[in-house]
Amino acid sequence: MNLLLLTPHDLLDSGRARIHDSRRLRHLVDVHRAAPGDELTVGMENGGIGRARLVRLDGEHAEFHLGPLDETPPPPLPLHLILALPRPRMLARTLENIAALGVKRLTLLHTARVEKSYWQSPELADERIDAHLRLGLEQARDTRLPVIQQRRRFRPFVEDELPALLEGHRALVAHPGGERECPRGLDMATLLTLAIGPEGGFVDYEIAQLRQAGFEQVHLGPRILRVETAVVALLARLY
Amino acid sequence: MNLLLLTPHDLLDSGRARIHDSRRLRHLVDVHRAAPGDELTVGMENGGIGRARLVRLDGEHAEFHLGPLDETPPPPLPLHLILALPRPRMLARTLENIAALGVKRLTLLHTARVEKSYWQSPELADERIDAHLRLGLEQARDTRLPVIQQRRRFRPFVEDELPALLEGHRALVAHPGGERECPRGLDMATLLTLAIGPEGGFVDYEIAQLRQAGFEQVHLGPRILRVETAVVALLARLY
Repeated sequence: MNLLLLTPHDLLDSGRARIHDSRRLRHLVDVHRAAPGDELTVGMENGGIGRARLVRLDGEHAEFHLGPLDETPPPPLPLHLILALPRPRMLARTLENIAALGVKRLTLLHTARVEKSYWQSPELADERIDAHLRLGLEQARDTRLPVIQQRRRFRPFVEDELPALLEGHRALVAHPGGERECPRGLDMATLLTLAIGPEGGFVDYEIAQLRQAGFEQVHLGPRILRVETAVVALLARLY
Repeated sequence: MNLLLLTPHDLLDSGRARIHDSRRLRHLVDVHRAAPGDELTVGMENGGIGRARLVRLDGEHAEFHLGPLDETPPPPLPLHLILALPRPRMLARTLENIAALGVKRLTLLHTARVEKSYWQSPELADERIDAHLRLGLEQARDTRLPVIQQRRRFRPFVEDELPALLEGHRALVAHPGGERECPRGLDMATLLTLAIGPEGGFVDYEIAQLRQAGFEQVHLGPRILRVETAVVALLARLY
């Protein structure tokens, strides 16, 4: 946690905040070894960043005096990521990673090679997703929460929703093979939609549908990466 | 496992191989759901890649008839990675990732912010390191094992060993702040040494020592990433 992410509920008044959830308290104590008098970097959910002084800490609460939260969070990536739902543990780490890397819009999508049981995972509950995203933001000193949507049917999503979502966007699908390497260092002014398949990849029918919808197929070379690794590698290469 | 990595010990003769370790057997059965008659991609440790036909499978052994292993593994990265020893679980995943991404030379280094207890981790045993590297190679369809060394003292390594290791190399240290962004898309003909610090970063003294040894300090922007994520992001951006 390089930033303590506050929510409006934590505010006592405009200059003071108090937290009492165990995750943040434990982190303050165990990792930061914080003590009253210490200064920390804090940020307001979807707002600014600044410094705060810890004025009280006991087993149940931590209270802060806030300085001005007038620093802007780092720029978001101009990207809509469409990701075939990964296995639950990989999903957890991937949510942290994409939040840390600045993705603000993610669609988790069912595809032929996604195991149906993954959709029953407790990791898909809103609170669990939210917790992972906050960890990623706190790691990267960001405050803006990504927006996540879940789509359990591939074809209706691609046929009915995607055309409007792609307007004004360049669209890439990362898939081994194909003739084009993934581009590098894209302009932050270009809106991008990036689709990444499951372990084992998209099936031919899905690739055909995505190409017909306007996606260019790109690859990262001859090495097949785990989805979790590929997501980070693709984002780092694109931006 | 997109490739079954064989060792010379697995060979019965030039055209047949038999494996009996539980890791590979379980993977064949549980993930590949392999059955006699199936064809798989196999590679010889530090050698070529080809196809093999599974001819026998029971609870204890799998036996293969090998085709010619005459395909070359993907090109290695021309890189020596120097990594402050991460916490054990992060080390395990990082070893898999760097093997998958094509790193062939890794030095695990002690630095001021590495917890001394990490050096006692069972993950540092040769067999454990080897197992993680093989998982990464099998994922990426590579056969060439990386060479790993462990250095438990920063200063003797930097002062006595590094100068010879850096000859003919460009040297980068990834560290937040500083004036230069990490370069992109390096030439595969340039030898590179890349140093990555621990959670919390190198301390000032270490950065000064590395800069004096010839390292350029580069950063990935305002976002602070976990080491595990930063390693993948840096390699994906550099190559």
